[in-house]
Amino acid sequence: MSEFAIDPQLLADCHRLGRFDLCHVLLNSNASLPWFILVPETAVTELFDLPDTPRTAVLHEAAVVAQFIKNHLGYQKINFAAIGNIVPQLHLHIVGRKLGDPCWPAPVWGKIIESQEYSGQRLEGIRELLVRQCSLKIELDNP
Amino acid sequence: MSEFAIDPQLLADCHRLGRFDLCHVLLNSNASLPWFILVPETAVTELFDLPDTPRTAVLHEAAVVAQFIKNHLGYQKINFAAIGNIVPQLHLHIVGRKLGDPCWPAPVWGKIIESQEYSGQRLEGIRELLVRQCSLKIELDNP
Repeated sequence: MSEFAIDPQLLADCHRLGRFDLCHVLLNSNASLPWFILVPETAVTELFDLPDTPRTAVLHEAAVVAQFIKNHLGYQKINFAAIGNIVPQLHLHIVGRKLGDPCWPAPVWGKIIESQEYSGQRLEGIRELLVRQCSLKIELDNP
Repeated sequence: MSEFAIDPQLLADCHRLGRFDLCHVLLNSNASLPWFILVPETAVTELFDLPDTPRTAVLHEAAVVAQFIKNHLGYQKINFAAIGNIVPQLHLHIVGRKLGDPCWPAPVWGKIIESQEYSGQRLEGIRELLVRQCSLKIELDNP
């Protein structure tokens, strides 16, 4: 599916980290919470319109990100959602949460107030850890 | 797992419709959108802490509800989430959405403003349709 392109709105809102076998891995630019977004390379827009096998595989990649957040970023709770009311391209939110975080206990969608930027060093640190721990692939056209 | 009990807050917020093999099926009392909640019988609180096999099975039941919403309730978009910041017991939201619905395009969590009640007839209609179309089981202790 070489014609696949990530929605421009997602690219505007996120840092592009790399990819797994099925999904592109983005990180929401708001650094106040670890907010990952997976974008599977598919034209299907609804998670539940994916057939069982690819849906299970995509969910497996989401589980890898969830474990990464818990094991390496120090957030024990995960908020997970497929919404897509504004950006129709299928994308999955995987957000680390903890008691007292800047949005707790509200969900982040449309609610998060505090906004922080990732430093280049922090962003590189997360990417390198994902490469080492989760076999993230860095895309050559997107260093 | 006979000791399993649905969280009282979920029961207070929802109508209890019945169950599938793994999950109890609830319907949020706010009738302004078709807002189903699945509660799998497990002590695990995080979707991604479930091992692959039961997680896939739970997601399959969520897909059944999503298809039901699309095929029988007339909503083509599904918002899906596992949040649990307030009620820690694992539960999955499956919400039918469409352009111009009372909350569009915001996600429903913490946002929905309009509140309507289900009539007994409407509730029974949905339950019967779920029994017929999706093999929902009515629990004898919860007629």
